Formats: sequence, structure tokens, C-alpha cells
Amino acid sequence: MRMLLIHSDYLEYEVKGKALKKPEEIKEDQKIGKLDEVLAVFMSVEKVDEQNPDEVVDKAIKEIEDVASQVKTKNIFVYPFAHLSSELGSPEIALKILKKIEEKLKEKEYNVKRAPFGYYKAFKLSCKGHPLAELSRTIVPGEAKKEEEVPEALKKEEELVS
Amino acid sequence: MRMLLIHSDYLEYEVKGKALKKPEEIKEDQKIGKLDEVLAVFMSVEKVDEQNPDEVVDKAIKEIEDVASQVKTKNIFVYPFAHLSSELGSPEIALKILKKIEEKLKEKEYNVKRAPFGYYKAFKLSCKGHPLAELSRTIVPGEAKKEEEVPEALKKEEELVS
Ligand SMILES: [Mg+2]
Repeated sequence: MRMLLIHSDYLEYEVKGKALKKPEEIKEDQKIGKLDEVLAVFMSVEKVDEQNPDEVVDKAIKEIEDVASQVKTKNIFVYPFAHLSSELGSPEIALKILKKIEEKLKEKEYNVKRAPFGYYKAFKLSCKGHPLAELSRTIVPGEAKKEEEVPEALKKEEELVS
Repeated sequence: MRMLLIHSDYLEYEVKGKALKKPEEIKEDQKIGKLDEVLAVFMSVEKVDEQNPDEVVDKAIKEIEDVASQVKTKNIFVYPFAHLSSELGSPEIALKILKKIEEKLKEKEYNVKRAPFGYYKAFKLSCKGHPLAELSRTIVPGEAKKEEEVPEALKKEEELVS
């Protein structure tokens, strides 16, 4: 799984149309959604995640909770986003994983919204722009081969601000 | 290079602070920027791009022009974005590539803004949400090994809307 975590003043979406012939079934009130002061988590479930979906769910929640505590928010937006990977998993398993993440975060008393899967959606986002406001994470089942892309990249720049 | 192309009602940014010790030098008027009715192109320059930056520039421009013509806009926002790849190139070459893309698009009569490189930035984005409003592209120098992630992913879903 690849995740892009954006600490935002707000994220809102509006369903515009089907992107899959059989997208997730949704009710009228799921066609729009908004959260303010939110950690927006854009997620691409990958093929490799199908090897152990439960483990990927747990690792994803750990990363999300870690970032949420650092940016001090209890509001989390789970947002399916196919553009972070070129090795996407099946829509069925992707949806199961995203729903499970939503459920488990709710059990942990976060205020969670999840944007529906399989639709074209308009969205508005306002990224706060502080040093932790944009982060990305890669999660894989099995060995802890988590990559933290930005710190990795910044290491190359030896003039990194300390 | 990985690109995320978002057809947007607007994209605006505001520089908040240095992300590198020596970021790109900018003037006061580059600290904020906005374009309406814009193709926002978020870009991660990758290590592999250093093999042939000129070729990557040309291929990137071809992709951007292709999408811009489909969504019928002449407004293009070149936005450095480190979160699309775990194999980032050096900041120096990344900046050169992004500047060259900006220049060449301007020569082609597009209305172009480029957000500065090496800064934390707040940004506001409004994605239009039509079927071509979110696209991603991977470009590599050498053989035409361009991946079009979303079509690839959708192929897996055999119930794809025709
Ligand atoms: Mg603000």
C-alpha cells in the first residue's frame, strides 16, 4: 500500500459518476462528505497487499495513528486514490482493506470519513504546508520494508536543514 | 519521472518555509501563486531520469500537452511533489528538469506557473472530478516504457464501463 498523508484545513468530495461498472453501493448521503482540520489519507492498495490484507490494515493504522498524533488531530479521511502505484490490487480486496481501516479507526475513537470506492469524485483540499503536512508511506506485508520516501530523499541533500 | 495530473478549478500555493537548507532562490512575488481552470501537474523527478534529462523533459511535455488538449486548457501548473516516488533524483537535477519543462511550455504559448522547489508550501486544490480529471503517468528515459497506471488498473476490473 502506498499512502499520501496531507494535514489539511479541510477535505471535501462530491461523487460525479461511476468509474467502475459496479462501484461500491452507496446511499444518497455518501455522495458528498467533508471534514475540517483533518488528516487526509490518500491510499493505493497494491497487488502485494493481497498476500496478507489483515497485516496491511494493521500496519496502515499504525502509520496513520503515528502521523495523526504528531499533527494532533482526531479527524481522519480515508480516501481511495489509484494514482500512487502502478501495481494496484483488485478493487474487491482494495475496498475490503479500506473499509477495515475505516472501522478500526472508528473503534479507536477517531472521527473518520471514507470517500466511496469506484467513483469519479470532485474534491477540494487545503494542505497546511508545515513540515509534517505532506508525508508518504509505503507498506508491504511480511518483513518490515517500510519506505519513508521523503526522509530518504532529503538524506541525499546533505545540506538538509537540521 | 512520476506525474499526477489534476484538472482543477484552481490551484494555489503559499511558501511556508525552507525544506532544504539551500532551496531554489525566489523573489517575493514567487511566495504565492494561483491559476484558475488549470491542469495541475504534480511531479517527482526520479534517479533514473538523470540518465537523460533532456529526453525526460521532452516526454513529460508530450504527456502534459496530450492531457491539456483533452481537458481543453492552456493553463498549466508545474508543481514539484516528492511523494510520488521512492527513488527521487538529486534536487539539483530535479530543479533543472522542472525549470526546463516550464520554459518549453511557455515557448509553446501555454500560461504556466511553477511552484518553487525546496520549500514547504501550503496549497489549495479543487479537482473537477470528471473522468480525465485525475491521471498519472510514469516516464523513463530510453525505451518507451511508459506506464499508464489507471488504465492498467482498470483492465483488472473486467466489469469496466465501456
Ligand atoms: Mg491555514
